[in-house]
Amino acid sequence: MFNQSLDKLIQRKNSLVCVGLDSDIHKIPKSLLSEMDPLYTFNKAIIEATSDFAVAYKLNIAFYESLGIAGWELLERTLAIMPRGVLLIADAKRADIENTARKYAETFFTTYAFDAMTIIPYMGMDSVTPFLEYEDKGVFLVTLSSNAGSTDFQFLKSDGIPLYQSVAQKAVEWNFLYGNCGLVVGGTHTTEIREIRDTAPDLPFLIPGIGAQGGNLEKVIEYATDPQGRAALINSSRTVIYASPERDFAEAAHSRAKQLRDQINVLITVHKNPGLLGQN
Amino acid sequence: MFNQSLDKLIQRKNSLVCVGLDSDIHKIPKSLLSEMDPLYTFNKAIIEATSDFAVAYKLNIAFYESLGIAGWELLERTLAIMPRGVLLIADAKRADIENTARKYAETFFTTYAFDAMTIIPYMGMDSVTPFLEYEDKGVFLVTLSSNAGSTDFQFLKSDGIPLYQSVAQKAVEWNFLYGNCGLVVGGTHTTEIREIRDTAPDLPFLIPGIGAQGGNLEKVIEYATDPQGRAALINSSRTVIYASPERDFAEAAHSRAKQLRDQINVLITVHKNPGLLGQN
Repeated sequence: MFNQSLDKLIQRKNSLVCVGLDSDIHKIPKSLLSEMDPLYTFNKAIIEATSDFAVAYKLNIAFYESLGIAGWELLERTLAIMPRGVLLIADAKRADIENTARKYAETFFTTYAFDAMTIIPYMGMDSVTPFLEYEDKGVFLVTLSSNAGSTDFQFLKSDGIPLYQSVAQKAVEWNFLYGNCGLVVGGTHTTEIREIRDTAPDLPFLIPGIGAQGGNLEKVIEYATDPQGRAALINSSRTVIYASPERDFAEAAHSRAKQLRDQINVLITVHKNPGLLGQN
Repeated sequence: MFNQSLDKLIQRKNSLVCVGLDSDIHKIPKSLLSEMDPLYTFNKAIIEATSDFAVAYKLNIAFYESLGIAGWELLERTLAIMPRGVLLIADAKRADIENTARKYAETFFTTYAFDAMTIIPYMGMDSVTPFLEYEDKGVFLVTLSSNAGSTDFQFLKSDGIPLYQSVAQKAVEWNFLYGNCGLVVGGTHTTEIREIRDTAPDLPFLIPGIGAQGGNLEKVIEYATDPQGRAALINSSRTVIYASPERDFAEAAHSRAKQLRDQINVLITVHKNPGLLGQN
């Protein structure tokens, strides 16, 4: 039951922060470029600087596989230095028919021991179950993406129900199998996040789009978390990891991650514990 | 203009056959397991045995990346022995927001020099354009998949139009940009293939689902090819590459690929050149 384990982890760490390691040689501080292995040095420094505040790290697989074999080696070495007690998410957005989906699941859950991964659900249930069958692993279905193109198909209504809601409804059904299904919901769509939370009250949400993409953190916390202020991972990639282009990048990432965790926790207190607020 | 180049290649090779290299250590002939590098030996033998009849090879990326770095090495070595004059398709089904999509495009079009790749269009136009911008590369959008789960979302109707048709309509628009957009349409859905061909008369179709998945080859040729009997790639993976589990696997693959090419060409003559048929 991945979703239960995630909930315990969130409580223990008292954080909803997910740090996205979209590590890019063109964006890391110039001062690192003289290092033997600049991206590894960068990842290591960012992880050490943020692990007190992050409940999860999301590795954007595109940034690694685009480097070829060196990228997969970087991925392996990065996973090897992750501290215990954080969730490791492969943001891989894979999808295919069953026999192929099994291979993708094997890649991220066995070959690389990620705890969770992202999936595109366009191809339906039999393309998703090979991932769900790893019962202790989390499967986040891209339901409503954070980008402008999300309006092309995801908002198409069938019998009055937008596609993203049909995906959320199916995810609720599929979650009954093993209790390990979650949703990716873009933080740029605050109205829709509220609707999706109504449809899927218990599923964990992985929420990109805060920060560089402009999502409203307060609305996201109010609408996306469950009544206890949990069941959500708020991802920040560029805003945290590239908080400073200078030699102080790790300190800057530390401060930004701490600030984000604290902001979120204050917002949870404000929106989810009105009793507490009333005492002030 | 990828689509024009593809058309010329199809004419030159007089074949619509795409061989899918879903190479799996558990399925290749047992006799190869004593080789130093069984999967490479298998791929090499299959390519040599089928390249007279295949206009394209489709590498199912899941089968390679699930092996970790050894799999990417296998992929590289397999690409290195491909003959000239065949199209190399990365069946990767990637998708993400723009800055990430750029990295995936870089992976398959630059790091590995594939000629075309498959994409899941769920996230809309800005997730697809980074691929399309490689003007001489082909981008096949998964429109209607061959599996049972295709009914979960792809058949949902909005204003009477099923989602797969909305994708096809958008693909026609997006193809105006660079002339390099194609569609993946499962060969198991013959009625719908006809509708999609009406919507997208000029786009090339990549058609899985013939063979192991049970698609009807005659209907597919009749409905999916253009009036000249072109603009389609008929993929066969398991049926060709695992045509025999014995030492004669390469000869068996040779025969099966030749048979498939010839069957297709006869069906094209029957369905697309009624004048010729009338002379018999």
